[in-house]
Amino acid sequence: MDFLDEPFPDVGTYEDFHTIDWLREKSRDTDRHRKITSKSKESIWEFIKSLLDAWSGWVVMLLIGLLSGTLAGVIDLAVDWMTDLKEGICLSALWYSHEQCCWTSNETTFDDRDKCPEWLKWAELMTGHSEGAGAYLLNYFLYILWALFFSFLAVSLVRVFAPYACGSGIPEIKTILSGFIIRGYLGKWTLLIKTVTLVLAVSSGLSLGKEGPLVHVACCCGNLFCSLFSKYSKNEGKRREVLSAAAAAGVSVAFGAPIGGVLFSLEEVSYYFPLKTLWRSFFAALVAAFTLRSINPFGNNRLVLFYVEYHTPWYMTTQLGKYPVLEVIVVTGITAILAYPNPYTRRSTSELISELFNDCGALESSQLCDYYNNPNMTRPVDDIPDRPAGPGVYTALWQLALALIFKIVITIFTFGMKIPSGLFIPSMAVGAIAGRIVGIAVEQMAYHHHDWIIFKNWCRPGADCVTPGLYAMVGAAACLGGVTRMTVSLVVIMFELTGGLEYIVPLMAAAVTSKWVADAFGKEGIYEAHIQLNGYPYLDQDEFTHRTLATDVMRPRRSEPPLAVLTQDSTTVEDVETLIKDTDYNGFPVVVSRESERLIGFVQRRDLTLAIKNARQKQDGVVSNSVVYFTEDAPQLAPNNPQPLKLRRILNLSPFTVTDHTPMETVVDIFRKLGLRQCLVTRSGRLLGIITKKDVLRHMAQMMNQDPESIMFN
Amino acid sequence: MDFLDEPFPDVGTYEDFHTIDWLREKSRDTDRHRKITSKSKESIWEFIKSLLDAWSGWVVMLLIGLLSGTLAGVIDLAVDWMTDLKEGICLSALWYSHEQCCWTSNETTFDDRDKCPEWLKWAELMTGHSEGAGAYLLNYFLYILWALFFSFLAVSLVRVFAPYACGSGIPEIKTILSGFIIRGYLGKWTLLIKTVTLVLAVSSGLSLGKEGPLVHVACCCGNLFCSLFSKYSKNEGKRREVLSAAAAAGVSVAFGAPIGGVLFSLEEVSYYFPLKTLWRSFFAALVAAFTLRSINPFGNNRLVLFYVEYHTPWYMTTQLGKYPVLEVIVVTGITAILAYPNPYTRRSTSELISELFNDCGALESSQLCDYYNNPNMTRPVDDIPDRPAGPGVYTALWQLALALIFKIVITIFTFGMKIPSGLFIPSMAVGAIAGRIVGIAVEQMAYHHHDWIIFKNWCRPGADCVTPGLYAMVGAAACLGGVTRMTVSLVVIMFELTGGLEYIVPLMAAAVTSKWVADAFGKEGIYEAHIQLNGYPYLDQDEFTHRTLATDVMRPRRSEPPLAVLTQDSTTVEDVETLIKDTDYNGFPVVVSRESERLIGFVQRRDLTLAIKNARQKQDGVVSNSVVYFTEDAPQLAPNNPQPLKLRRILNLSPFTVTDHTPMETVVDIFRKLGLRQCLVTRSGRLLGIITKKDVLRHMAQMMNQDPESIMFN
Repeated sequence: MDFLDEPFPDVGTYEDFHTIDWLREKSRDTDRHRKITSKSKESIWEFIKSLLDAWSGWVVMLLIGLLSGTLAGVIDLAVDWMTDLKEGICLSALWYSHEQCCWTSNETTFDDRDKCPEWLKWAELMTGHSEGAGAYLLNYFLYILWALFFSFLAVSLVRVFAPYACGSGIPEIKTILSGFIIRGYLGKWTLLIKTVTLVLAVSSGLSLGKEGPLVHVACCCGNLFCSLFSKYSKNEGKRREVLSAAAAAGVSVAFGAPIGGVLFSLEEVSYYFPLKTLWRSFFAALVAAFTLRSINPFGNNRLVLFYVEYHTPWYMTTQLGKYPVLEVIVVTGITAILAYPNPYTRRSTSELISELFNDCGALESSQLCDYYNNPNMTRPVDDIPDRPAGPGVYTALWQLALALIFKIVITIFTFGMKIPSGLFIPSMAVGAIAGRIVGIAVEQMAYHHHDWIIFKNWCRPGADCVTPGLYAMVGAAACLGGVTRMTVSLVVIMFELTGGLEYIVPLMAAAVTSKWVADAFGKEGIYEAHIQLNGYPYLDQDEFTHRTLATDVMRPRRSEPPLAVLTQDSTTVEDVETLIKDTDYNGFPVVVSRESERLIGFVQRRDLTLAIKNARQKQDGVVSNSVVYFTEDAPQLAPNNPQPLKLRRILNLSPFTVTDHTPMETVVDIFRKLGLRQCLVTRSGRLLGIITKKDVLRHMAQMMNQDPESIMFN
Repeated sequence: MDFLDEPFPDVGTYEDFHTIDWLREKSRDTDRHRKITSKSKESIWEFIKSLLDAWSGWVVMLLIGLLSGTLAGVIDLAVDWMTDLKEGICLSALWYSHEQCCWTSNETTFDDRDKCPEWLKWAELMTGHSEGAGAYLLNYFLYILWALFFSFLAVSLVRVFAPYACGSGIPEIKTILSGFIIRGYLGKWTLLIKTVTLVLAVSSGLSLGKEGPLVHVACCCGNLFCSLFSKYSKNEGKRREVLSAAAAAGVSVAFGAPIGGVLFSLEEVSYYFPLKTLWRSFFAALVAAFTLRSINPFGNNRLVLFYVEYHTPWYMTTQLGKYPVLEVIVVTGITAILAYPNPYTRRSTSELISELFNDCGALESSQLCDYYNNPNMTRPVDDIPDRPAGPGVYTALWQLALALIFKIVITIFTFGMKIPSGLFIPSMAVGAIAGRIVGIAVEQMAYHHHDWIIFKNWCRPGADCVTPGLYAMVGAAACLGGVTRMTVSLVVIMFELTGGLEYIVPLMAAAVTSKWVADAFGKEGIYEAHIQLNGYPYLDQDEFTHRTLATDVMRPRRSEPPLAVLTQDSTTVEDVETLIKDTDYNGFPVVVSRESERLIGFVQRRDLTLAIKNARQKQDGVVSNSVVYFTEDAPQLAPNNPQPLKLRRILNLSPFTVTDHTPMETVVDIFRKLGLRQCLVTRSGRLLGIITKKDVLRHMAQMMNQDPESIMFN
């Protein structure tokens, strides 16, 4: 089979919502590569073309890095501006965010970096009053109004222009990378709308993150650049290698963590990840991080965030789910109303996390650092001993506890909505709040009861024994780990985020413990759960341990009609057309004869349809009575027979076979590792049946006592 | 096939220097698992046993972490002491190293941490003089003598007790992990001798590292603990999962880099690395790093090293290679003679690297920091501007240049010797020296010519533009990357080593560039080159792009006798015994009859031999004339025939088949991903031939114009 000079257009492509055949894609790419190599010896021009081809992979990576880094930078800036727009506006330049506005102001003092005359809250701008209950209520009201406006705009844009832009996209990307085709999911429109609505959704103050969607955005960029090179655009297997690297670039810009991005792509998202893709992902992640850093001029130590996607299954049960726009409006309204009064929920979640991670230095003005000063404080500033908590800390504790409950509840409702949303930041925030509360509690216990056995050995009075900020960091890692079941990539992202290489041991311990605890509730991470919920045909890495054989899974079953096959040289065009019309199988085995049942190959339905249509149009003498043959030479026919039609070109001569006695665990392994679409079953050389990926998934669902029909089929 | 209640001992095991069948191992483990799960419902005791079994993986990881961490700590301490023993001895406690000796001394001042009255050089101890040419020569002589003694002891121990203890072991571990069996390579003796001789070899001052061998030591620990649990000791596939994790623990203690260890195992060493192994490796690496940290009380910021193995192929050509002991003595002698006079080669390589990485702070006393002070120095100590180099720096430059040449040459000769040796540290040292020299050159150029275009834009006069230490770090990473072709794991290890998260971009750029440059010389890293040199049957990840088909590779060839097969119910015991005697194939296909050539299964030679031997001994009526049958029911035989022998139990009913038209790239892919030993070739249901892993490797070598016989066969 030479797919390069395709006999008719579209042969070897796939239909929407179908699964690709990895082995075939790989084989096609090798053919292409071989052709280019042999041509390159012919002329200088062909040689240069072959060099360009060899380097096109790196070029695509460079472009992906540049574009996704740029988009992430633009999104960051836009979110900053629009989040502040809910509170007020900068008079000196309307496009400045609060921070930029006061940053450029001359009248800003170091103590009050947030206050400058150029920045006006809405109430002050409209009424001239900046204090009092009236101004507070007016600001509150406008805050809610802006939030509703942003989220309404976001949900409407998604509904009208790009339904695929909702959610985080990671479960779908995982499914696509495993070999499924969802046309348009990574298209230009999705890219555009997702970028715009992501800014709107985050700015509206909903409890969602932008990091998961950024992975989707980066993958859209990857898909976009694939179309520039036929090497990638015409081969679904090669395209997925690029997408794996794009996912790494996405995480890289989302959290400013290039290594973490590569590991995330490897551990969480990718299906087929050869060493070559590892190197390329590394390069793309590097370029993306570098681009983002050069764009964003406010790299002043703020937490570059990293989110995990968290589409909880529960949203399916709310009645609101039927009215997505209304749902978004209601949730935004509730979020805005409840979030504004509490200082820990009003600010952006990433700022909150950043504050929770911080230790209380000597100059810290946060309410969380309102400790009574220790009288004997003669130490350097970086070694502040434990001190009794002041009233500010107790107030903060109450507010944090309320914020914790609010975040948990609202996050659950937010994730199912039809807008771009990520879960890394919200779940980190939940973990960080819980961690900080525990940290302060332990610190105060250690201060007041340093003679207790647990503190006695390592905590002298007046020393700095407990760092509540570290508790928050570990809490965030543990919560995130429990939600996504990441381990290595989680730890790397956490220390790329915080620069805290010395905390590697508590972070690793938190990651392992949270994985153990979470596994006790169920083996699946949030992505797998979401994939199952949506019924995507995804073959996960779980081990299959049931004692079934290929013969139990293959079609046809005993009660079913025999397998639909073609014979190598005795089927007519009409027979084939009838078969195609009467069945909806994706392909048909070709046998020597119906009696011997010896398998010679497999032919795809789509290729067969195209080939016959093409032959009927262009090849004279091909009529309904013509014999279709798949052998090398035309069969011996009676002289009055019409001209036969040779279809060996579209016949796959190396179909995958297993015997009927093969254990299903081996079959599952083969499907998973080789990325098959289907596999034929034989016994003593006779064709018995067929197992498709669909059959495998259905069988696995059955074995786990799930509804086998919950899997979305082709 | 139920391998749990094995019909006779040793069925399902492998011989030395054979390749395992991954699918079979996996299938056996699933059987075992299934049995335990079904038993666990019978009684409380069985339930507890099943829980213990489920946790045994984590227990093994814990034990590996503890033991390999302990061994690494002991090796560290012993090397410290013995390295210093070459120069002198501590009078207050003979078992103290130089540093410990002066650390505990009361008379040590901060400026001269190296000098204290308790530590005596040999010349001072023996003659009472510590200064002058005589004392220098005596110290020089004793230094050489100790070095020769250590290396002689090391090479003799390796020769006599454990030949497998030489080298780094990483290429062999890579081969073992890919499914090859080398008995004794990870045995107890190897563990013991490698630990002892590693200390001797490193202490002798040879240009070698201890990090590669530490990976071997950790894998030996892994193998040791596997024997405690039948789950791992009886299943070669499961055992390899443990060994992958052990390799991660080894790198973790070698470099103090737990995350880097996991990535190293994933990127460089492992063949089959499921997510489960990732989590376990992570845990083992964590425990190992933690154990090492709690053992080593001198964790005072010194570089915890990480080496890559570097057995250069060139040693094959030295005549000395025939006399391993003499070779070691000669190389040690030359190393000691040349290394002592140059201060940069006399000290341990890790100390050298540590000094080269360091920036010149205000208090630095190193010769490398002998700059003329800038008159207008009113800055904080951590922002020292560029200054003109003093005479010390120029002396250091010359000595470094000599050290560079010496290190490159001696390292090439050292790696092939028959003692435990690693290459991470030596190649890092080479890169770090080169980097530091370039760094100082650029710094001086920038200082003297800051109006040059390249410096103009980013380097104001009097500012700190160039950090030579960073150049050394990047150089070390680049050199190491070029040798091993690591990328992601390299960068992670480098920043775990140095804590320099902010240098992630130059480190990544160095890793990618060095990979590109090195790839231009040849695609293989040092491990792959070594595996090829030794002819191990290792199927690497390189893509196979030739246009050959299964039919071109399978045996028998056209000129050869037909394939040796068994029939399902018409071969006698004698026929089988003759076939076993006359051929040396590892297994035989079983067909329905010689005429139809329909395949029904595959039987291993070893199982067949054992089964027949067992039957002849224990089963009455089995004689040479008995018919062997593989079918469910005994064949219809004439009444005077002897009792037939049923061998269905040892028949593999699901042998792997491909058609003769299958492209070889697909076959190679299948072998690689499924870990097959052999694969049968059919056409239209008829058995045509067989392809073994050996045939695949031989074909690949042929296609690359290499000598196909260079591959070591079973």
